Amino acid sequence: MNKVVTFGELMMKLSPLGYARFVQSHQFNVEYSGAEANVAVALSSFGVPAVFVSALPGNEIGDAALNALRHYGVDSSGVIRKEGRLGIYFAEKGASQRPSKVIYDRSYSAISMTDVSDFDWDKLFEGASWFHFTGITPALSDTLASICLLACQTAKAKGVTVSCDLNYRSKLWAKEKAGKIMSQLCEYVDVCIANEADAADVFGISAIGSEVETGMIDTASYAEVARQLSKRFGFQTVCITLRESISASDNNWSAILYEGGSVYHGKKYPIHIVDRIGGGDSFAAGLIYSLLTGKTPQDAVEFASAAACLKHTIEGDFNMVTASEVESLVKSHGTGRVIR
Amino acid sequence: MNKVVTFGELMMKLSPLGYARFVQSHQFNVEYSGAEANVAVALSSFGVPAVFVSALPGNEIGDAALNALRHYGVDSSGVIRKEGRLGIYFAEKGASQRPSKVIYDRSYSAISMTDVSDFDWDKLFEGASWFHFTGITPALSDTLASICLLACQTAKAKGVTVSCDLNYRSKLWAKEKAGKIMSQLCEYVDVCIANEADAADVFGISAIGSEVETGMIDTASYAEVARQLSKRFGFQTVCITLRESISASDNNWSAILYEGGSVYHGKKYPIHIVDRIGGGDSFAAGLIYSLLTGKTPQDAVEFASAAACLKHTIEGDFNMVTASEVESLVKSHGTGRVIR
Amino acid sequence: MNKVVTFGELMMKLSPLGYARFVQSHQFNVEYSGAEANVAVALSSFGVPAVFVSALPGNEIGDAALNALRHYGVDSSGVIRKEGRLGIYFAEKGASQRPSKVIYDRSYSAISMTDVSDFDWDKLFEGASWFHFTGITPALSDTLASICLLACQTAKAKGVTVSCDLNYRSKLWAKEKAGKIMSQLCEYVDVCIANEADAADVFGISAIGSEVETGMIDTASYAEVARQLSKRFGFQTVCITLRESISASDNNWSAILYEGGSVYHGKKYPIHIVDRIGGGDSFAAGLIYSLLTGKTPQDAVEFASAAACLKHTIEGDFNMVTASEVESLVKSHGTGRVIR
Amino acid sequence: MNKVVTFGELMMKLSPLGYARFVQSHQFNVEYSGAEANVAVALSSFGVPAVFVSALPGNEIGDAALNALRHYGVDSSGVIRKEGRLGIYFAEKGASQRPSKVIYDRSYSAISMTDVSDFDWDKLFEGASWFHFTGITPALSDTLASICLLACQTAKAKGVTVSCDLNYRSKLWAKEKAGKIMSQLCEYVDVCIANEADAADVFGISAIGSEVETGMIDTASYAEVARQLSKRFGFQTVCITLRESISASDNNWSAILYEGGSVYHGKKYPIHIVDRIGGGDSFAAGLIYSLLTGKTPQDAVEFASAAACLKHTIEGDFNMVTASEVESLVKSHGTGRVIR
Amino acid sequence: MNKVVTFGELMMKLSPLGYARFVQSHQFNVEYSGAEANVAVALSSFGVPAVFVSALPGNEIGDAALNALRHYGVDSSGVIRKEGRLGIYFAEKGASQRPSKVIYDRSYSAISMTDVSDFDWDKLFEGASWFHFTGITPALSDTLASICLLACQTAKAKGVTVSCDLNYRSKLWAKEKAGKIMSQLCEYVDVCIANEADAADVFGISAIGSEVETGMIDTASYAEVARQLSKRFGFQTVCITLRESISASDNNWSAILYEGGSVYHGKKYPIHIVDRIGGGDSFAAGLIYSLLTGKTPQDAVEFASAAACLKHTIEGDFNMVTASEVESLVKSHGTGRVIR
Amino acid sequence: MNKVVTFGELMMKLSPLGYARFVQSHQFNVEYSGAEANVAVALSSFGVPAVFVSALPGNEIGDAALNALRHYGVDSSGVIRKEGRLGIYFAEKGASQRPSKVIYDRSYSAISMTDVSDFDWDKLFEGASWFHFTGITPALSDTLASICLLACQTAKAKGVTVSCDLNYRSKLWAKEKAGKIMSQLCEYVDVCIANEADAADVFGISAIGSEVETGMIDTASYAEVARQLSKRFGFQTVCITLRESISASDNNWSAILYEGGSVYHGKKYPIHIVDRIGGGDSFAAGLIYSLLTGKTPQDAVEFASAAACLKHTIEGDFNMVTASEVESLVKSHGTGRVIR
Repeated sequence: MNKVVTFGELMMKLSPLGYARFVQSHQFNVEYSGAEANVAVALSSFGVPAVFVSALPGNEIGDAALNALRHYGVDSSGVIRKEGRLGIYFAEKGASQRPSKVIYDRSYSAISMTDVSDFDWDKLFEGASWFHFTGITPALSDTLASICLLACQTAKAKGVTVSCDLNYRSKLWAKEKAGKIMSQLCEYVDVCIANEADAADVFGISAIGSEVETGMIDTASYAEVARQLSKRFGFQTVCITLRESISASDNNWSAILYEGGSVYHGKKYPIHIVDRIGGGDSFAAGLIYSLLTGKTPQDAVEFASAAACLKHTIEGDFNMVTASEVESLVKSHGTGRVIR
Repeated sequence: MNKVVTFGELMMKLSPLGYARFVQSHQFNVEYSGAEANVAVALSSFGVPAVFVSALPGNEIGDAALNALRHYGVDSSGVIRKEGRLGIYFAEKGASQRPSKVIYDRSYSAISMTDVSDFDWDKLFEGASWFHFTGITPALSDTLASICLLACQTAKAKGVTVSCDLNYRSKLWAKEKAGKIMSQLCEYVDVCIANEADAADVFGISAIGSEVETGMIDTASYAEVARQLSKRFGFQTVCITLRESISASDNNWSAILYEGGSVYHGKKYPIHIVDRIGGGDSFAAGLIYSLLTGKTPQDAVEFASAAACLKHTIEGDFNMVTASEVESLVKSHGTGRVIR
Repeated sequence: MNKVVTFGELMMKLSPLGYARFVQSHQFNVEYSGAEANVAVALSSFGVPAVFVSALPGNEIGDAALNALRHYGVDSSGVIRKEGRLGIYFAEKGASQRPSKVIYDRSYSAISMTDVSDFDWDKLFEGASWFHFTGITPALSDTLASICLLACQTAKAKGVTVSCDLNYRSKLWAKEKAGKIMSQLCEYVDVCIANEADAADVFGISAIGSEVETGMIDTASYAEVARQLSKRFGFQTVCITLRESISASDNNWSAILYEGGSVYHGKKYPIHIVDRIGGGDSFAAGLIYSLLTGKTPQDAVEFASAAACLKHTIEGDFNMVTASEVESLVKSHGTGRVIR
Repeated sequence: MNKVVTFGELMMKLSPLGYARFVQSHQFNVEYSGAEANVAVALSSFGVPAVFVSALPGNEIGDAALNALRHYGVDSSGVIRKEGRLGIYFAEKGASQRPSKVIYDRSYSAISMTDVSDFDWDKLFEGASWFHFTGITPALSDTLASICLLACQTAKAKGVTVSCDLNYRSKLWAKEKAGKIMSQLCEYVDVCIANEADAADVFGISAIGSEVETGMIDTASYAEVARQLSKRFGFQTVCITLRESISASDNNWSAILYEGGSVYHGKKYPIHIVDRIGGGDSFAAGLIYSLLTGKTPQDAVEFASAAACLKHTIEGDFNMVTASEVESLVKSHGTGRVIR
Repeated sequence: MNKVVTFGELMMKLSPLGYARFVQSHQFNVEYSGAEANVAVALSSFGVPAVFVSALPGNEIGDAALNALRHYGVDSSGVIRKEGRLGIYFAEKGASQRPSKVIYDRSYSAISMTDVSDFDWDKLFEGASWFHFTGITPALSDTLASICLLACQTAKAKGVTVSCDLNYRSKLWAKEKAGKIMSQLCEYVDVCIANEADAADVFGISAIGSEVETGMIDTASYAEVARQLSKRFGFQTVCITLRESISASDNNWSAILYEGGSVYHGKKYPIHIVDRIGGGDSFAAGLIYSLLTGKTPQDAVEFASAAACLKHTIEGDFNMVTASEVESLVKSHGTGRVIR
Repeated sequence: MNKVVTFGELMMKLSPLGYARFVQSHQFNVEYSGAEANVAVALSSFGVPAVFVSALPGNEIGDAALNALRHYGVDSSGVIRKEGRLGIYFAEKGASQRPSKVIYDRSYSAISMTDVSDFDWDKLFEGASWFHFTGITPALSDTLASICLLACQTAKAKGVTVSCDLNYRSKLWAKEKAGKIMSQLCEYVDVCIANEADAADVFGISAIGSEVETGMIDTASYAEVARQLSKRFGFQTVCITLRESISASDNNWSAILYEGGSVYHGKKYPIHIVDRIGGGDSFAAGLIYSLLTGKTPQDAVEFASAAACLKHTIEGDFNMVTASEVESLVKSHGTGRVIR
């Protein structure tokens, strides 16, 4: 199978044990995470050769981040070592009515200090059939926006399919700037993924009748959002993931896929959450896997949704499930009987 | 803001990790807890200057207990050091149909050996606007009942508002004795808090139509309990917290506030429990905070209920949430979406 | 009370912490488990003298396994030490839609290498009133099938009641072989226990209208299964445990007892799961305890069901609950209020 | 082999992890310990049937203590359950120049509230050949001093050998009282064990030229102490253990045995300490094992010293080493080469 | 006692468990540390009122840092909350021939972004008798150098004694810049502390005949260094701490104090290390305590050296020892016998 | 740099935490180890492309083993997946006079069931310049001895240098069989490594005057052993590692290198041990690195010895040190000063 290239930041994730709060913690779990790295790990777990492109500091902390990726079989040859720090994010896990809390400490990271010349996209895309990035990467610096543009253009020129998860982060950039830059990049994107809030935040395309805050989701209105997105940018495929928040402990998760004027609905999963961070990245990986392996649109949205569902049952942002585990969930009733 | 003084016992809490039982445990989490100390910590987390008055043994175990309070900003200058031991309680966390189990080992504690002369209430109430204690403190020794009486009288004389959580503990004293002594103390109390069983246990005032054991709660009948309590002792405000036990993992929590002949109902929270001990103390702290900051009765019962709800999502008996986190829950739909 | 003898394999159970997956784990919890050992521990916790008969390797790993049994008061004098290894099973805990996963590494264990002459059943049954084994033991080797047969025959000759939990494991033997050997053994069995799938797997007796995979259970159809089992082998008592899988986090559990032509239904427990492995073994222990202490059939199925329910709330395969805790659940509403 | 009976208190030991101090600890290791219980566990590990006689509270904390003993094969049938608490001791591990610190919280324990009628020594000594206690037991209450006396007299009457470790604890009683009561008891003692300070503290018999505080030990002077002890009480055998404290991390350990007018010196072990508590109890167990199995005085002091040395390399107060491991150390050079 | 004010950065310290390396770690211990904060904690543990002045970010990570100080009784009222991050340092513990490794990630911290107007030194020094800072604080930013200067001048004007630990960090500034700025500040310093390398690095005053790298220390040559320092800046007291590195596991530690033309030598401690970071800060705290309480120069250097020695036996950078524990070491032989 | 290929078994290593014994353990650290895998990891940490050839079971336990190798950058493309189990070894860490204990449970492993046709050595050696194996691999099965022979022959034919560490394991084969098979294989070996006992065990070549058991090592006698080894098999280079066991906590480590008739002695390191397993494998990796990078014999033995020394200071069998860290130790005095 041809390789998939993803490009973005890899951060250290520091999280209190269990449901502990920051102010009572004396130990942190140490993991490494980033939207595009998560996609690479999930793809590798599905058996897809995945190359992660990024920049890490040249010290032992950077080495540790690299090891975490290699652990799950990701090809780290696209990672360069630079001055700068490793971005950190602190994540406190919520429960019931108490929300999870994420505190970013990602400024001045090695990747945010990269230059356009640091990455040779022609070489990186050799043997690749897919390129994936998210809206976080161009938000990290103006240079990174340019690098993303160059990567997209090179991919297009080489016949590499491009997918993008909008992934809007208000802490990183304002909606106007996001809208402007993402519009440029989306010209090169074949497959677009957004969650229930992204399209409104980035492009001002809102779902009528849904209230993200209350967890009320009107699926039909999102089909219209997908149609508009597809129309504006000429995306071949648009997926919108729909999270209904019942509480920090229980969520419903589903998604729709829009392609060729038709809407395909995935099964809705009522999930008792172990760790919900990384759900969207797992959906993206599931979608890329599905499209790479020639699944039908309906099968694709089912596989991607099941992959995302399973991520919610796993500690950490990496979705260490095999393709066959995902297929089992797609085919089963999700009753979780012990496998002996 | 003027300070709040609370008075009671601080114990060491030893609990197996996770859902382990005592008989299989090789490590205990070590925390420090006590009804009135929990209120002080919660108030400090809300930004209220809180002074805790107590007695601790003069050894390193007492030092450790003191550190736990200081950690959360409580003013520990009211703690004296005495002969005697630190009371201990062992707490095993239940799940589903298995109840949590608490084993007390609190006899002969330093506070139970204090004399009336050990505390200078005139000095302790300097700059204070509120005094809080619970029915546990006078139950610890006859001397402590006298000390509580003196504290209440001094508070009244100095214009300090007095609140009391009935907090009946059958292991500490018989209902008759509790009724007699609490009746004396309640003459000085302005704000009374009780849970769904306390009023019946201590004063024989029962809610018709509720069965605490089965988790069936008739809210209306508790309004009548509150009215009777208010009438008998002339309380300005009475709050009754109402826990509906579905299982050890899931409870519904709500409360009513009775004031000036009117009943105010707080929102009912269906809670998936992380740790339920200390819920009532968090309610008390939320109520004190609300009344100190001039909230309306309706806003007060909402704030206090939300504070208690959040405690159930936090490990340990201390409610380390900020006032703004509580306000967020009051205003939101409790859907627990990640805060980034 | 006369003693109960159980016979089977004791394995090391290695499990990732919390909900971690094998591929991300750097520590394992180390426990010791086996269907018949679990029954012995549960009986000992109920106050019944329980003797476990098995073979363990003569090294420190075998010592550690032995210690685990002794910890809970099981009489380990029936354990011999042999060449061979300690069987291991790896168990990853599932959550929500992700199933638990069990990987067996039990070949070449000390018990699978025992000879018929290794166990002196006449002596082992001195002072015993009950013998219990499960379908796992005869599946481990042909010799063990012979040893089980000898044990059953000796028990019968000495007036010792024999119970058997069918416990079919497809990894250990084919359905045909299981059916043949279990048929021989069941001639000596007085009390037979099966779960919702065993009777069909071993004896081809299926419950019409139930789909184990989807978690749909038709209780009535299982009464007919019990009747057929009883008829074919002349069992005095047959119990069928019925697990409805909603997800890996939530199951409903109930059971029926068939005796003297009548069917007795136990209460159905909706369980939020801590650890579900060992639920069936706890049911068996609850049933043996009930029948040994002269409970009525209805009380017996209630006690055994409550015992099994409580096991789901406890970490590890051993059910460390007292008989009085089980009785409390039988009598209560399972609302899990804190016991102080 | 005939059984050994030991009599004393079993406490919960709570200790910070690693070298953490009490004031910085959020978890404690939970172990169970007591001088005579430690001897019972060590003997059981050597393969000697060991019965522990004591009293424990009737709650789950008492159950947990009992389990700890059973884990290592000790016969707990001599333990009665009583009102009262489980004594606790807090132990902080020292390092280099920082001493270990032990804080006792053992008042009002179940054993300290026993009556003379609680123990039927005639029955307890059935089938026993040895009785062991230490100076801690009679120090716990006047009643316990009487019980010890009765136990000693019964032992003597039944031909059971009696050993006593003086084990003086200044927190429990004054030197005068200790001297008076231990003198009474020592009339029945055959084998007496003391550390480098006990004989002086209890009986005023000092070693000329040794300074316990500085770690300077003059072995010869202790031979004279042993001779005087033997002469005053008619002990058949006297052992004195000699700890040279270099630091909290490094100690030298040796012992002398005095019998029939001769002094036998054990090898001196320079020990890099893992956990030194329980070293003396392991020596006692090693000595009892040696004398029970007919070793010569020289072999006995070597075995006991090696057993005590090994205890220093093991976490916890229980010496979980086999007799063959001790013999290996006696015969080897203590170079600690890996055993594969 | 009048209060001591210290001023500097408080960082998060992230360290692998035990002796693990960064690249193999999945959990970090989370502590909070900083040279001047360490001094404040040590003083508070000695019973001296200690105020810490600093700036922390306004988020929960900043709250957690604050809690750590309050835990040990430090008055945190001098800490302001600012934009910027919390500085982090990663610390891997070495052993034997493997050195400990510290990786700083402290750029852009809240304190490095403070303005001169952020601190009101007149008010901060009310009721203070001592001001302490180290060479790290002025190295963090040019503004901080100015703030230090202003603090020193204010202290001098108010009769507050000023102490400074040179604490040269080559990662923060070049030797020339350090020399220039520290020279300015030292004009206001009464008590100067340096380690075996600082005087050479900052002021070019080298000890003839010592080789820091090889661990060879010539104490006499350092007396001359102290004399020169004293002469150049008019210090009342100069202390030089002398660490002889045998390995990462074993160090010798001693110090000299120079005052009034005389040199006082402290005892040399051979230390088996638990955690050596913070040793110098503990020395500084010991020295300040000694001078505040009127000890003689000889007693002062002994107390400070013993305090530093004890820090090496404690996990974390905070020296949680009492003054009486330090006095015990000064008076004893450091043999670390258990304290019961 | 051309790649190095190593061939052998990868096992799961289960070890109690800290210094705990098996019989008291409730958790195990889970690591993956094997002599040749350890060499691959160490080489990868030095920056050398390292390929590991082996067989692992096709389940998640095999996946986890694979991940551990990939974590440190080892190329795992030479690992095939087979039926069979993952070999396990249990390792209890000793201290002071208590030896470490290793219990093997490696029978029936996937690699022991491989066929000659499973490995295509021609392909595996493409681009390789070095092949390394140890005496453990041919000891695992007769087929593996044949596979090793084929690998050696293929290596020779392709001009790939071959190194072998004799690594005699008495649990795996008898001395005679080892001698016979290793003699065959050594014909193809260029670089031979042995520890202080191997040459005597395998080839009967003993060092006169050394007693391995007592830790007495006569370096000169080992030069003669090396000379004889070299002569008998025509090795280009022979290294003998010399461990002097002082205790399980302290060892001296050194090595000699024999080449061209000359003996080169490495520095002797007195080591305070963190974890000594894997020391020899680290030496081998250091030697291979040295010879691959053209170091002189003296520099080679120094580098390899320093690498082995550092391994003793690291938890786990993998030597995660960089080449520059090893060089630092070679050049320094091993005083372990903090690196900031």
